[in-house]
Amino acid sequence: MIELLKITSLTNAHIKELAKLYDNKERNKRGLVLVEGLHLVKEAYELGILSEVLIVNEEDALDGVTNILVTSDIIKKLSSTSTPQAILGVARIENKKLVYGNTILILDGVSDPGNFGTIVRTATALGVASIIVDGGIDIYNEKVVRATQGAIFKMPIVKMDLKEAILDLKKKGYLVLATSLRDAIDLEDIKEINKYALILGNEAKGVSSDALALCDKAIKIKMDGDMESLNVAIAGAICLYSLNNKRK
Amino acid sequence: MIELLKITSLTNAHIKELAKLYDNKERNKRGLVLVEGLHLVKEAYELGILSEVLIVNEEDALDGVTNILVTSDIIKKLSSTSTPQAILGVARIENKKLVYGNTILILDGVSDPGNFGTIVRTATALGVASIIVDGGIDIYNEKVVRATQGAIFKMPIVKMDLKEAILDLKKKGYLVLATSLRDAIDLEDIKEINKYALILGNEAKGVSSDALALCDKAIKIKMDGDMESLNVAIAGAICLYSLNNKRK
Repeated sequence: MIELLKITSLTNAHIKELAKLYDNKERNKRGLVLVEGLHLVKEAYELGILSEVLIVNEEDALDGVTNILVTSDIIKKLSSTSTPQAILGVARIENKKLVYGNTILILDGVSDPGNFGTIVRTATALGVASIIVDGGIDIYNEKVVRATQGAIFKMPIVKMDLKEAILDLKKKGYLVLATSLRDAIDLEDIKEINKYALILGNEAKGVSSDALALCDKAIKIKMDGDMESLNVAIAGAICLYSLNNKRK
Repeated sequence: MIELLKITSLTNAHIKELAKLYDNKERNKRGLVLVEGLHLVKEAYELGILSEVLIVNEEDALDGVTNILVTSDIIKKLSSTSTPQAILGVARIENKKLVYGNTILILDGVSDPGNFGTIVRTATALGVASIIVDGGIDIYNEKVVRATQGAIFKMPIVKMDLKEAILDLKKKGYLVLATSLRDAIDLEDIKEINKYALILGNEAKGVSSDALALCDKAIKIKMDGDMESLNVAIAGAICLYSLNNKRK
């Protein structure tokens, strides 16, 4: 039988401490993040990074972590969604190291948490080895964690200076590509590729001129109509999929 | 000089009527939808479907439509975002007819407004002629309109019975494909294609068994790792892009 702690008060000191984990600084300081719902809790548990779990029903208790039986009101207080599930976990986050695999993704100013999360999920499914991001984004924002469906805990995501990262990757033999609507070759004009890094830009401004100047090639996706554009996560997915199929 | 009407009261009868346009039934009954922000208002204006515009600044007045000068509080009341812009329009929506082009998209239960909107935007950029949807979705939901970035007004989106639609398209010579994680061929195993229809499924349940039984082929996107999956808008974009490149 799994040992259960019990908390019923919304003003309990531990619950108050957990509520602070919605703050980015607090998350980074304590190396902890809240994960909401059964799917994400399970993912964190299977990866061995779940430190505790708050449950409304005793039968949801998990072996090997701290189990706390709480009220639905406590879950609601700690949840960022309007219809929270009866389970919420606390997962350890770690500073991950860059993995130099076949494909590396570089995010140059992607700012929407939903887009960032979808990109992480897509990159995980399409075999990206690591993601490099510039300083701005809050990696463990609750919307990001939800949109990744747990992929956030598997993918090495590293904060690095954009310029340094591009130069380092070029030196290591990566072809560095950037998406751009102007002065770019058609994605399908790349016929064969080996190791590559793909740079995706900010939702409104696109890839910065600094990154475009440093990259090997700017690429664009052929579209119908002059005024059309694609969401950054969609554009990234199409590029990754197409380029992976051209691997030598 | 453009004639300006003026409304300053939050309880003005016309403002109250406009506020009702957040209700799907009301939108369909009156054939009108609210469009928020400069970008969407401009799109609707250029398409000739803008009937009136509410502005905070006189210089935003538009020729050929009803212009109403209002307070920021009125815009805020009518807006669905927390940081509304100083402009909001009312656009006419019409029952559109199916266009039998080279590519038709069929949405079998896509339920998230953000996903639906992103799919419409992507489909417009990737040359889809029409989108067929089943009964469930609220086409002009404010989140959908925002996510499409105006593409919602250009794309023929038609509600049709799924089974009838598939049979009709097959009779007309379309190859009908459906995404599926099981019992499916690799998307890249399709080497050449002419006219086709692509079925995308519900976020949780995927394409229904009825649709899978009726379609010509089930396809899947090759992914890393057994547990990975892709967001439906991402999967759709990859399929459309890849298939379009295989067009005879």
